Amino acid sequence: MFHVEHNKRNYINYNVMNIEQVKNQIRNVPDFPIKGIQFKDITTALADPECLKCLRDELVKRYKNKGITKILGIESRGFIIAPAVAMEIGAGFVPIRKPGKLPAETIEVSYQKEYGVDTIQMHKDAVNENDIVLIHDDILATGGSMAAAIDLAKKAGAKKIYTNCLIELVGLNGRKFLENKTEEIDCLLQMEVNE
Amino acid sequence: MFHVEHNKRNYINYNVMNIEQVKNQIRNVPDFPIKGIQFKDITTALADPECLKCLRDELVKRYKNKGITKILGIESRGFIIAPAVAMEIGAGFVPIRKPGKLPAETIEVSYQKEYGVDTIQMHKDAVNENDIVLIHDDILATGGSMAAAIDLAKKAGAKKIYTNCLIELVGLNGRKFLENKTEEIDCLLQMEVNE
Repeated sequence: MFHVEHNKRNYINYNVMNIEQVKNQIRNVPDFPIKGIQFKDITTALADPECLKCLRDELVKRYKNKGITKILGIESRGFIIAPAVAMEIGAGFVPIRKPGKLPAETIEVSYQKEYGVDTIQMHKDAVNENDIVLIHDDILATGGSMAAAIDLAKKAGAKKIYTNCLIELVGLNGRKFLENKTEEIDCLLQMEVNE
Repeated sequence: MFHVEHNKRNYINYNVMNIEQVKNQIRNVPDFPIKGIQFKDITTALADPECLKCLRDELVKRYKNKGITKILGIESRGFIIAPAVAMEIGAGFVPIRKPGKLPAETIEVSYQKEYGVDTIQMHKDAVNENDIVLIHDDILATGGSMAAAIDLAKKAGAKKIYTNCLIELVGLNGRKFLENKTEEIDCLLQMEVNE
Protein backbone atom coordinates (compact mmCIF):
# COMPACT_ATOMS: atom_id res chain seq x y z
CA MET A 1 0.00 0.00 0.00
CA PHE A 2 2.81 2.36 0.86
CA HIS A 3 4.47 1.76 -2.51
CA VAL A 4 1.31 2.53 -4.38
CA GLU A 5 0.90 5.82 -2.53
CA HIS A 6 4.53 6.68 -3.07
CA ASN A 7 4.31 5.93 -6.75
CA LYS A 8 1.15 7.95 -7.14
CA ARG A 9 2.88 10.93 -5.58
CA ASN A 10 5.81 10.66 -7.99
CA TYR A 11 3.42 10.37 -10.86
CA ILE A 12 1.62 13.54 -9.85
CA ASN A 13 4.90 15.38 -9.31
CA TYR A 14 6.03 14.35 -12.73
CA ASN A 15 3.01 15.96 -14.26
CA VAL A 16 3.35 19.11 -12.21
CA MET A 17 6.51 20.02 -14.11
CA ASN A 18 6.77 19.46 -17.83
CA ILE A 19 9.56 20.41 -20.20
CA GLU A 20 7.88 23.67 -21.27
CA GLN A 21 7.73 24.73 -17.62
CA VAL A 22 11.44 23.96 -17.29
CA LYS A 23 11.97 26.34 -20.21
CA ASN A 24 10.40 29.13 -18.17
CA GLN A 25 13.04 28.62 -15.49
CA ILE A 26 15.98 29.05 -17.87
CA ARG A 27 17.41 32.53 -17.41
CA ASN A 28 18.48 34.77 -20.26
CA VAL A 29 21.69 36.65 -19.43
CA PRO A 30 22.40 39.44 -21.93
CA ASP A 31 25.93 40.17 -23.16
CA PHE A 32 27.59 36.99 -21.87
CA PRO A 33 30.29 35.86 -22.55
CA ILE A 34 30.58 38.79 -24.98
CA LYS A 35 28.45 41.80 -25.90
CA GLY A 36 25.47 40.92 -28.08
CA ILE A 37 25.16 37.27 -26.96
CA GLN A 38 22.00 36.24 -25.05
CA PHE A 39 23.32 33.47 -22.81
CA LYS A 40 20.88 30.69 -21.86
CA ASP A 41 21.63 30.08 -18.20
CA ILE A 42 20.38 26.66 -17.06
CA THR A 43 21.59 27.08 -13.45
CA THR A 44 18.25 28.63 -12.41
CA ALA A 45 16.50 25.45 -13.61
CA LEU A 46 19.08 23.15 -12.01
CA ALA A 47 18.46 24.78 -8.62
CA ASP A 48 14.90 23.41 -8.71
CA PRO A 49 14.66 19.67 -7.88
CA GLU A 50 11.49 19.26 -9.96
CA CYS A 51 13.27 20.68 -13.02
CA LEU A 52 16.22 18.36 -12.45
CA LYS A 53 13.92 15.35 -12.30
CA CYS A 54 11.97 16.48 -15.34
CA LEU A 55 15.15 16.81 -17.44
CA ARG A 56 16.31 13.36 -16.34
CA ASP A 57 12.92 11.73 -16.90
CA GLU A 58 12.50 13.26 -20.37
CA LEU A 59 15.88 11.84 -21.39
CA VAL A 60 15.18 8.45 -19.82
CA LYS A 61 11.89 8.27 -21.75
CA ARG A 62 13.66 9.02 -25.04
CA TYR A 63 16.70 6.76 -24.64
CA LYS A 64 15.70 3.82 -22.44
CA ASN A 65 14.90 1.50 -25.34
CA LYS A 66 17.83 2.23 -27.66
CA GLY A 67 20.33 -0.20 -26.15
CA ILE A 68 22.66 2.59 -25.05
CA THR A 69 25.66 1.29 -23.09
CA LYS A 70 27.53 4.57 -22.42
CA ILE A 71 26.50 8.20 -22.09
CA LEU A 72 29.33 10.59 -22.95
CA GLY A 73 29.05 14.01 -21.29
CA ILE A 74 30.95 17.03 -22.64
CA GLU A 75 32.82 19.05 -19.95
CA SER A 76 31.42 20.51 -17.83
CA ARG A 77 27.71 21.29 -18.15
CA GLY A 78 27.31 17.98 -19.97
CA PHE A 79 28.31 16.25 -16.71
CA ILE A 80 25.23 17.40 -14.79
CA ILE A 81 22.25 15.46 -16.14
CA ALA A 82 23.95 12.65 -18.10
CA PRO A 83 25.06 10.47 -15.14
CA ALA A 84 21.56 10.52 -13.60
CA VAL A 85 20.13 9.34 -16.93
CA ALA A 86 22.85 6.70 -17.30
CA MET A 87 21.95 5.14 -13.94
CA GLU A 88 18.30 4.86 -14.93
CA ILE A 89 18.86 3.27 -18.35
CA GLY A 90 21.65 0.95 -17.19
CA ALA A 91 24.48 2.72 -19.04
CA GLY A 92 27.88 3.92 -17.81
CA PHE A 93 29.00 7.54 -17.80
CA VAL A 94 32.11 8.69 -19.70
CA PRO A 95 33.51 12.23 -19.44
CA ILE A 96 34.81 14.05 -22.53
CA ARG A 97 37.29 16.60 -21.21
CA LYS A 98 39.66 19.39 -22.08
CA PRO A 99 43.33 18.44 -22.53
CA GLY A 100 45.35 17.56 -19.45
CA LYS A 101 42.38 16.61 -17.27
CA LEU A 102 42.11 12.85 -17.82
CA PRO A 103 44.84 10.87 -16.07
CA ALA A 104 45.13 7.68 -18.16
CA GLU A 105 45.89 7.20 -21.87
CA THR A 106 43.60 9.32 -24.07
CA ILE A 107 42.48 9.77 -27.67
CA GLU A 108 41.71 13.27 -28.90
CA VAL A 109 40.10 15.37 -31.62
CA SER A 110 40.87 18.99 -32.48
CA TYR A 111 38.41 21.35 -34.11
CA GLN A 112 38.27 24.88 -35.43
CA LYS A 113 36.55 27.52 -33.35
CA GLU A 114 35.85 31.13 -34.28
CA TYR A 115 39.25 32.11 -32.93
CA GLY A 116 41.79 29.30 -32.86
CA VAL A 117 41.65 25.55 -32.34
CA ASP A 118 40.17 23.53 -29.46
CA THR A 119 40.91 19.95 -28.46
CA ILE A 120 38.80 17.42 -26.53
CA GLN A 121 39.92 14.12 -25.07
CA MET A 122 38.45 10.84 -23.86
CA HIS A 123 40.11 7.90 -22.15
CA LYS A 124 41.28 5.40 -24.77
CA ASP A 125 39.63 2.46 -23.00
CA ALA A 126 36.34 4.23 -22.22
CA VAL A 127 34.43 3.27 -25.39
CA ASN A 128 34.83 0.30 -27.73
CA GLU A 129 33.19 -1.30 -30.77
CA ASN A 130 30.51 -2.97 -28.62
CA ASP A 131 29.21 0.37 -27.35
CA ILE A 132 26.08 2.21 -28.42
CA VAL A 133 26.67 5.73 -27.16
CA LEU A 134 24.66 8.84 -26.44
CA ILE A 135 26.69 12.05 -26.47
CA HIS A 136 25.13 14.73 -24.30
CA ASP A 137 25.71 18.45 -23.78
CA ASP A 138 23.60 21.29 -22.46
CA ILE A 139 23.43 23.55 -25.52
CA LEU A 140 23.58 22.98 -29.27
CA ALA A 141 24.80 26.20 -30.89
CA THR A 142 26.86 25.91 -34.10
CA GLY A 143 27.62 22.25 -33.35
CA GLY A 144 31.43 22.43 -33.41
CA SER A 145 32.12 20.73 -30.09
CA MET A 146 29.39 18.13 -30.65
CA ALA A 147 30.83 17.28 -34.09
CA ALA A 148 34.26 16.83 -32.47
CA ALA A 149 32.73 14.59 -29.79
CA ILE A 150 31.09 12.48 -32.52
CA ASP A 151 34.49 12.12 -34.21
CA LEU A 152 35.96 11.08 -30.87
CA ALA A 153 33.32 8.37 -30.39
CA LYS A 154 33.90 7.17 -33.97
CA LYS A 155 37.65 7.09 -33.37
CA ALA A 156 36.98 4.85 -30.34
CA GLY A 157 34.96 2.54 -32.62
CA ALA A 158 31.45 3.09 -31.18
CA LYS A 159 28.85 0.93 -32.98
CA LYS A 160 26.13 3.58 -33.02
CA ILE A 161 26.10 7.24 -31.93
CA TYR A 162 23.09 9.24 -30.70
CA THR A 163 23.42 12.91 -29.77
CA ASN A 164 21.39 15.04 -27.41
CA CYS A 165 21.39 18.58 -26.03
CA LEU A 166 19.03 20.09 -23.50
CA ILE A 167 18.62 23.28 -25.57
CA GLU A 168 18.88 23.84 -29.31
CA LEU A 169 19.58 27.43 -30.33
CA VAL A 170 17.65 27.59 -33.56
CA GLY A 171 19.08 29.90 -36.16
CA LEU A 172 22.69 28.85 -35.57
CA ASN A 173 22.26 25.79 -37.81
CA GLY A 174 23.94 23.33 -35.46
CA ARG A 175 21.47 20.62 -36.47
CA LYS A 176 22.30 21.13 -40.15
CA PHE A 177 26.04 20.97 -39.37
CA LEU A 178 25.64 17.62 -37.58
CA GLU A 179 23.41 16.00 -40.22
CA ASN A 180 24.75 12.70 -41.53
CA LYS A 181 27.40 12.63 -38.81
CA THR A 182 25.21 10.82 -36.28
CA GLU A 183 22.31 8.39 -35.91
CA GLU A 184 20.01 11.05 -34.46
CA ILE A 185 20.15 14.60 -33.09
CA ASP A 186 17.59 15.30 -30.41
CA CYS A 187 17.14 18.36 -28.20
CA LEU A 188 14.60 18.78 -25.40
CA LEU A 189 13.95 22.49 -25.96
CA GLN A 190 14.19 24.82 -28.91
CA MET A 191 15.02 28.45 -28.17
CA GLU A 192 15.69 31.46 -30.36
CA VAL A 193 19.14 32.98 -29.99
CA ASN A 194 17.61 36.30 -29.05
CA GLU A 195 14.68 34.89 -27.07
CA MET B 1 2.12 -6.48 -6.87
CA PHE B 2 4.25 -5.07 -9.65
CA HIS B 3 5.60 -2.38 -7.36
CA VAL B 4 6.58 -4.89 -4.72
CA GLU B 5 8.49 -6.92 -7.30
CA HIS B 6 10.14 -3.83 -8.67
CA ASN B 7 11.20 -2.71 -5.26
CA LYS B 8 12.54 -6.12 -4.43
CA ARG B 9 14.63 -6.06 -7.58
CA ASN B 10 16.13 -2.68 -6.69
CA TYR B 11 16.88 -3.98 -3.25
CA ILE B 12 18.74 -6.98 -4.64
CA ASN B 13 20.63 -4.79 -7.14
CA TYR B 14 21.65 -2.50 -4.35
CA ASN B 15 23.28 -5.36 -2.52
CA VAL B 16 25.06 -6.65 -5.60
CA MET B 17 27.38 -3.65 -5.54
CA ASN B 18 28.51 -2.16 -2.26
CA ILE B 19 30.81 0.76 -1.67
CA GLU B 20 33.85 -1.46 -1.07
CA GLN B 21 33.31 -3.05 -4.49
CA VAL B 22 33.16 0.41 -6.05
CA LYS B 23 36.56 1.01 -4.46
CA ASN B 24 37.97 -1.90 -6.45
CA GLN B 25 36.91 -0.19 -9.66
CA ILE B 26 38.79 3.03 -8.95
CA ARG B 27 41.98 3.09 -10.99
CA ASN B 28 45.33 4.19 -9.64
CA VAL B 29 47.28 6.21 -12.23
CA PRO B 30 50.90 6.75 -11.21
CA ASP B 31 52.69 10.06 -11.80
CA PHE B 32 49.61 12.18 -12.60
CA PRO B 33 49.36 15.14 -12.75
CA ILE B 34 53.03 15.24 -11.68
CA LYS B 35 55.70 12.65 -10.93
CA GLY B 36 55.25 10.94 -7.57
CA ILE B 37 51.47 11.46 -7.31
CA GLN B 38 49.22 8.37 -7.37
CA PHE B 39 46.07 9.74 -9.00
CA LYS B 40 42.75 8.13 -7.97
CA ASP B 41 40.86 7.88 -11.26
CA ILE B 42 37.12 7.49 -10.68
CA THR B 43 36.26 7.34 -14.42
CA THR B 44 36.62 3.55 -14.43
CA ALA B 45 33.94 3.35 -11.72
CA LEU B 46 31.68 5.90 -13.44
CA ALA B 47 31.68 3.79 -16.61
CA ASP B 48 29.84 1.07 -14.67
CA PRO B 49 26.11 1.79 -14.12
CA GLU B 50 26.00 -0.28 -10.93
CA CYS B 51 28.85 1.79 -9.45
CA LEU B 52 27.07 5.01 -10.42
CA LYS B 53 23.90 3.88 -8.70
CA CYS B 54 25.78 2.69 -5.64
CA LEU B 55 27.49 6.07 -5.22
CA ARG B 56 24.17 7.88 -5.57
CA ASP B 57 22.32 5.54 -3.22
CA GLU B 58 25.01 5.73 -0.53
CA LEU B 59 24.76 9.53 -0.58
CA VAL B 60 20.95 9.49 -0.60
CA LYS B 61 21.00 7.20 2.44
CA ARG B 62 23.30 9.56 4.33
CA TYR B 63 21.66 12.87 3.44
CA LYS B 64 17.96 12.23 2.87
CA ASN B 65 16.90 13.16 6.41
CA LYS B 66 19.00 16.25 6.99
CA GLY B 67 16.68 18.81 5.43
CA ILE B 68 19.15 19.66 2.66
CA THR B 69 17.73 22.18 0.16
CA LYS B 70 20.76 22.59 -2.18
CA ILE B 71 23.69 20.41 -3.16
CA LEU B 72 26.70 22.45 -4.28
CA GLY B 73 29.06 20.60 -6.65
CA ILE B 74 32.65 21.75 -7.18
CA GLU B 75 33.68 21.96 -10.87
CA SER B 76 33.88 19.62 -12.58
CA ARG B 77 34.07 16.13 -11.06
CA GLY B 78 31.76 17.37 -8.31
CA PHE B 79 29.06 17.81 -10.99
CA ILE B 80 28.78 14.10 -11.76
CA ILE B 81 27.03 12.46 -8.79
CA ALA B 82 25.62 15.48 -6.93
CA PRO B 83 22.66 16.27 -9.25
CA ALA B 84 21.45 12.64 -9.18
CA VAL B 85 21.48 12.75 -5.38
CA ALA B 86 19.76 16.15 -5.35
CA MET B 87 16.83 14.80 -7.41
CA GLU B 88 16.33 11.93 -4.98
CA ILE B 89 16.38 13.98 -1.79
CA GLY B 90 14.32 16.88 -3.20
CA ALA B 91 17.18 19.39 -3.29
CA GLY B 92 18.37 21.70 -6.08
CA PHE B 93 21.83 21.55 -7.66
CA VAL B 94 24.19 24.55 -7.64
CA PRO B 95 27.51 24.58 -9.51
CA ILE B 96 30.62 26.13 -7.91
CA ARG B 97 32.81 27.15 -10.84
CA LYS B 98 36.10 28.66 -11.90
CA PRO B 99 36.09 32.39 -12.71
CA GLY B 100 34.41 33.54 -15.92
CA LYS B 101 32.14 30.51 -16.32
CA LEU B 102 28.95 31.64 -14.57
CA PRO B 103 26.96 34.20 -16.57
CA ALA B 104 25.01 36.08 -13.89
CA GLU B 105 26.22 38.04 -10.86
CA THR B 106 28.58 35.98 -8.68
CA ILE B 107 30.23 35.95 -5.27
CA GLU B 108 33.74 34.51 -4.98
CA VAL B 109 36.41 33.23 -2.62
CA SER B 110 40.16 33.06 -3.32
CA TYR B 111 42.47 30.60 -1.63
CA GLN B 112 46.14 29.76 -1.50
CA LYS B 113 47.38 26.73 -3.42
CA GLU B 114 50.85 25.25 -3.43
CA TYR B 115 51.84 27.60 -6.27
CA GLY B 116 49.74 30.74 -6.51
CA VAL B 117 46.13 31.64 -5.74
CA ASP B 118 42.90 30.06 -7.01
CA THR B 119 39.40 31.55 -7.09
CA ILE B 120 35.99 29.87 -7.12
CA GLN B 121 32.63 31.48 -7.82
CA MET B 122 28.93 30.83 -7.26
CA HIS B 123 25.89 32.74 -8.50
CA LYS B 124 24.94 35.38 -5.94
CA ASP B 125 21.27 34.30 -5.89
CA ALA B 126 21.96 30.53 -5.80
CA VAL B 127 22.03 30.09 -1.99
CA ASN B 128 20.39 32.12 0.77
CA GLU B 129 19.88 32.08 4.55
CA ASN B 130 17.05 29.57 4.30
CA ASP B 131 19.28 26.94 2.69
CA ILE B 132 20.80 23.89 4.31
CA VAL B 133 23.55 22.92 1.89
CA LEU B 134 25.69 19.89 1.14
CA ILE B 135 28.96 20.70 -0.64
CA HIS B 136 30.20 17.78 -2.70
CA ASP B 137 33.43 16.95 -4.52
CA ASP B 138 35.07 13.75 -5.68
CA ILE B 139 38.30 13.81 -3.66
CA LEU B 140 39.32 15.27 -0.32
CA ALA B 141 43.08 15.85 -0.39
CA THR B 142 44.50 18.78 1.62
CA GLY B 143 41.05 20.38 1.79
CA GLY B 144 41.93 23.78 0.25
CA SER B 145 39.20 23.92 -2.37
CA MET B 146 36.59 22.47 0.01
CA ALA B 147 37.47 25.08 2.66
CA ALA B 148 37.03 27.81 0.02
CA ALA B 149 33.66 26.32 -1.00
CA ILE B 150 32.57 26.35 2.67
CA ASP B 151 33.54 30.04 2.87
CA LEU B 152 31.52 30.67 -0.28
CA ALA B 153 28.42 29.01 1.19
CA LYS B 154 28.89 31.01 4.42
CA LYS B 155 29.25 34.21 2.40
CA ALA B 156 25.90 33.40 0.77
CA GLY B 157 24.39 33.02 4.24
CA ALA B 158 23.67 29.26 4.25
CA LYS B 159 22.00 28.16 7.50
CA LYS B 160 23.88 24.89 7.84
CA ILE B 161 26.73 23.37 5.77
CA TYR B 162 27.48 19.67 5.32
CA THR B 163 30.47 18.51 3.26
CA ASN B 164 31.06 15.27 1.39
CA CYS B 165 33.68 13.72 -0.87
CA LEU B 166 33.58 10.34 -2.57
CA ILE B 167 37.20 9.60 -1.60
CA GLU B 168 39.25 10.79 1.35
CA LEU B 169 43.01 10.61 0.84
CA VAL B 170 44.12 9.81 4.34
CA GLY B 171 47.52 11.15 5.31
CA LEU B 172 46.96 14.55 3.67
CA ASN B 173 45.04 15.82 6.72
CA GLY B 174 42.19 17.41 4.77
CA ARG B 175 39.72 16.36 7.47
CA LYS B 176 41.82 18.05 10.15
CA PHE B 177 42.03 21.22 8.02
CA LEU B 178 38.23 21.38 7.65
CA GLU B 179 37.46 20.70 11.33
CA ASN B 180 35.23 23.35 12.94
CA LYS B 181 34.57 24.93 9.53
CA THR B 182 31.53 22.75 8.78
CA GLU B 183 28.67 20.83 10.38
CA GLU B 184 30.07 17.48 9.25
CA ILE B 185 32.72 16.06 6.93
CA ASP B 186 31.81 12.71 5.44
CA CYS B 187 33.59 10.64 2.79
CA LEU B 188 32.37 7.38 1.26
CA LEU B 189 35.80 5.79 0.87
CA GLN B 190 39.13 6.15 2.60
CA MET B 191 42.24 5.52 0.52
CA GLU B 192 45.95 5.82 1.21
CA VAL B 193 47.78 8.32 -0.97
CA ASN B 194 50.10 5.57 -2.18
CA GLU B 195 47.48 2.82 -2.27
